[in-house]
Order: sequence, then structure tokens, then C-alpha cells
Amino acid sequence: MTSRILLLFVILLGGCTAESDDPLPSWNEGTSRTAILDFVTRVTDPASADFVPAEERVAVFDNDGTLWTEQPAYFQVLFVIDKVKEMAPAHPEWRVKQPFKGILEDDLKAAFAEGVPAILAAALATHAGNTPEEFRQDVAAWLAEARHPRFDRPFTELVYQPMLELLDFLRAEGFATYIVSGGGIEFMRVWAEDVYGIPPEQVIGTSLATRFEMRDGVPTIVRLPEIGFVDDKEGKPVAINHHIGRRPILAFGNSDGDQQMLQWTAAGDGPRFMGLVHHTDAEREYAYDRTSHIGHLDAALDEAVEKGWSVVDMKRDWKVVFPPATQ
Amino acid sequence: MTSRILLLFVILLGGCTAESDDPLPSWNEGTSRTAILDFVTRVTDPASADFVPAEERVAVFDNDGTLWTEQPAYFQVLFVIDKVKEMAPAHPEWRVKQPFKGILEDDLKAAFAEGVPAILAAALATHAGNTPEEFRQDVAAWLAEARHPRFDRPFTELVYQPMLELLDFLRAEGFATYIVSGGGIEFMRVWAEDVYGIPPEQVIGTSLATRFEMRDGVPTIVRLPEIGFVDDKEGKPVAINHHIGRRPILAFGNSDGDQQMLQWTAAGDGPRFMGLVHHTDAEREYAYDRTSHIGHLDAALDEAVEKGWSVVDMKRDWKVVFPPATQ
Repeated sequence: MTSRILLLFVILLGGCTAESDDPLPSWNEGTSRTAILDFVTRVTDPASADFVPAEERVAVFDNDGTLWTEQPAYFQVLFVIDKVKEMAPAHPEWRVKQPFKGILEDDLKAAFAEGVPAILAAALATHAGNTPEEFRQDVAAWLAEARHPRFDRPFTELVYQPMLELLDFLRAEGFATYIVSGGGIEFMRVWAEDVYGIPPEQVIGTSLATRFEMRDGVPTIVRLPEIGFVDDKEGKPVAINHHIGRRPILAFGNSDGDQQMLQWTAAGDGPRFMGLVHHTDAEREYAYDRTSHIGHLDAALDEAVEKGWSVVDMKRDWKVVFPPATQ
Repeated sequence: MTSRILLLFVILLGGCTAESDDPLPSWNEGTSRTAILDFVTRVTDPASADFVPAEERVAVFDNDGTLWTEQPAYFQVLFVIDKVKEMAPAHPEWRVKQPFKGILEDDLKAAFAEGVPAILAAALATHAGNTPEEFRQDVAAWLAEARHPRFDRPFTELVYQPMLELLDFLRAEGFATYIVSGGGIEFMRVWAEDVYGIPPEQVIGTSLATRFEMRDGVPTIVRLPEIGFVDDKEGKPVAINHHIGRRPILAFGNSDGDQQMLQWTAAGDGPRFMGLVHHTDAEREYAYDRTSHIGHLDAALDEAVEKGWSVVDMKRDWKVVFPPATQ
């Protein structure tokens, strides 16, 4: 081997090593990436004044719009719509009753004219009366078939590659990573472990009330047609305290629904990281913030700018948005 | 070294090794110990037909009467009593109002004549209006001083040594160990990690409703004077499904309050272990079951016998009850 070839070999090897050592390869150089890396170094270096023991390294993530896409509608709402259509033959009364009538006639504007109560009515009609196991099977069956209207990909592929890398990186650095979402806790548990590496016990979300009962002598948990807990806004810190019993040191969201979670995280002692994903990329994903109903980001954006929280600019900060297609 | 001395040496070494290899040294030989060891072997041996992947090895434990003593009263009730006395100077109205009057006059019979509503009133008066951090400080300060009326030891030493060994053993075998107790979730989180090795996020219990609010501009969680969730009887499987999202494969209780948790555990597919601690040892601890108000064990005992669940006879099965005194 000549020395020039040897040199080339060393350079190539060096290049490979450097690349594989980068925990955030899909993040462009910039303030967001730097802030993340600096924070993790500070809290994990035993010699740092900001060192945090591993058991206190709690990181919480909103889901819709923070870990996966939430446009043109929350994916769980798309599930509700498909499920109403599937269940319609057994519910002739739906043909004349909103929101079902509108859903069945593909007139979503009429279906959801009433807003949240209409969405809730459709959600309860499709989510309750079953066991958690039965509901999970429903969700899994839907995810196996359904595809996003714009990207024509399975919904579980419309997750943010840079955030997947961040989750992996944090876990490798001793963090526990939790989802804290306004979405349904059981809806997310179906795929969160496969897609995010987040197991069921680290998924926190909005939930139905449930009841334990004997069904034909079989001990069963039944999902009731009533909301048990709304994990949004003020509900997020409440749920974190209830489920985890520790205050996070890192919190990531993307909307005003995450503002209280970020505030409560920020108010703890010691080093803290608060981040927002700002949807600025209409070409690769979507661009929306202050005027959007879905993922409304206004007061939280102002507070982030005022307090120096990290605002991730999707267009500028992310080399890629989604992982490569597999299906 | 003569061969006899060498032989002695080998025997002694062998004896030492055998002893330190025993994961349950405080359990006497018998059906309970054998059932535990057999179950753990079956679910952890990859070659076993009953093998369970580590992430599904969820073990749930009641606390009062299962992991620590619950006589002559639940320790949290003793905390309430002491706390009422401590807070009384700021509450002159308590001098003429039950249950406070009875507590202040050491007439617990009068104080709690109404039963659960009276206990609840005293609990809410001493547990709410503060933050989780403030409440934890209250509990920690009490535990540092309070001693059990009969054993004259700190309450956190009145934990069952054989159950501590079982918790350690299960974790060493890849299980996640959870508390699922009718006791207060925040009350237990104060000491469960130190005493049982169970971190806050694996403590499930009865909880107050809480609210997120700004207090003097500080984002704060406030404990409200109303019950949020009662983690007893039918509540236990409901809470397990909500917090963990997996069905346990091992459940341990000691009273009818644990019956539904054991039933739901038993109803899952594959290998299961259901256990009850039966308080049969008036000399070393207490003896009570079917006629006791605290730790009432009647229907669950019948079901355990009928279905072959493990019933641990404290007097017969445990070499020691408590760990050695340290204070």
C-alpha cells in the first residue's frame, strides 16, 4: 500500500467515524442544534456544575406537530373519520345526524361546523364501548392500510427524522423520554414503541374514563363514552406530575397547547431546555403558526422569543424532515 | 494444607456461595418460595415455552400490608393525626368540629365514628392547598421523627424484608416493579425509591385533584381539597392500564382491595403469578384477615384458595419480618 493510498484510507475511515459519531446528523449547524448539544453535555458531564443524575433526566415531548405531522388534520381525527365510515352500516341513525352525516357525505365542513363538541361526539362513538386491547387492534388495522392524503405514505412514516435522532440521543445519554400529548393515550401506545422507541408506560395523553367489570365472567377493562382527562394546556403539567412525579428538565412542543408544560419545566431549579418546533416549511411539510387552528402557535412563540427558549426552524434547521420511505 | 482442611475450606466456600446466590434468603422453604422461583425461572428462560420478553415483565405490588405494616392503622392515617395536631393552632374552629376535635383530644373513636368520610375530611385538611414539593417535605419531616407505637421504630423500617428481597430479585431478572396502592401517590413517592428501590414514576396510588396555576408569576401545581382518583378495588386495574398500559404478569396484595388487580392479572394470556400476604403472625407482626377493618381479607382469600394463587403465610414462610434496626 502506498502512503497516498494509506492516507486516503485514513481520511475515509476518519470521515466515517466522524459521521457515525454525530448524534444529530439530520440537524443543520445552527443555534438549535448547538443549544441541544450544549445542554446535554452540561447535564451529563459529572464534572459540570449543571450535572443532573440520570434518574432526574426526564424529557417530555408533545406528539402532534412535534414528533409527527398534524396537517391537514390530527391523524387521530382522520382515524375517527375512517372509523365512522366503517361502522356506519350498523348505525343507520348516523345518516341524518351530525357530525356523522357530514362525515359519511364527505362534507367535513358540515360535520365539524360545531367544532370541538362535534369532533368529540365522533371520537366517543368510535373509541368507546370496547376494551383497550380491542381498540388497539382497531388502530393497528387502520395504520396498516391508511395513507396520508398529500404524502401518500403511512402515517407512522410521517415522523420527524431529526426528532427521532434527538429521542435516540437523549436515551443514549441516560434520559427517559416521554410523550405528553393531547392525543389519545391508547391511540399512541399502539405504535409509539415501534416508531419512537417510547414504551406504553412512557406515553401520557388524553384518555377516556374506563371501568373494571366482569364480562361473561372475564375481568375486563371497558372504555366508556366519556372523557377521563384532557392532556392539553394546563393539563400537561398536571399529567406529568401525576404520571412521572418528577419535573422534566427538557420539554419540546410546537403549539400554545404546550406552553404550560414548557413554563412548568422552565420553572424548575437547575439547567433546563425548552424547545418549540416551528413549522416553516410549506414545501417539505407545512408552514403555519399564529393563524392556524391546528397547532396554533402564538403566545408560546412570543414567550419562547422573550425567554430565549429554542425555536427550531424546520426549514432552516432540518436537513430532512421525514425518514426515507419504506413502503 | 491437609486434605481435611482443604475439604472444610471448600465446604465453607461452597456454603458461602450458595447463601449469597439465594435471591430470597429470608423465605423459608415451602410452596410460596417454590412457586415464586419456579415462575421467575419459567418466564425468564429463553428456552421456556412460558418465556416473557423483559419489557412485558410487569410486577405490581399493593403497599399497605403487602410491603409494609398497616396496623394498628394505615401509617398515612397516623401522619394525618400528627399533622392535624401540628396545624391546630392555626385552626381554632377544629376544637369543636369532628373529626378534628376527637383527634386533638386523643379520642380517635369519636373522631372517626363516621368512618371513611371523617378520615377523608382530616386527610383533605392536611394534604391539600400546597404544592407536591411542599407536601413531600411535610411527609419527609414527619417520617424523620415519627415512630411506630408498638415497635418503636421509624415507619420506613417496618417494611417486609422478604418482600424487599422479592423486589430486588424481580428487578435483577428484568422485571419492572410498581406499587399500586390505595395510599396516597405523593405520600409514597417520598420514600419508595429509598426504601423499595421503586422510583416515583412507578408509584401508582390514590391522588388528589391538582391544578396548574400561576402563583405570583410562578408556574405551580396546586393540590386541591378533592379526591382525583381512588386507587382501590376496581380502581387498581383501571389505574394500571392507565399508567402502565400493559397487563402485569405478577401481582401481590394482601386484602380484598387487591382482588380485582389479581383477577385482572390472572385473566391475561400466558404465565401469571398472583400472591397474597396472609398476616398470621401476631408475635412478630399482626394476625388478621376476615374480620379486620384494616386489610380486610375475605373474598380474595377464598378466590386465592379456589384458584391456587399463592397465599404467603407470614408466620410459616418468612424467616424474618422486618430488616434489622438501623436507628
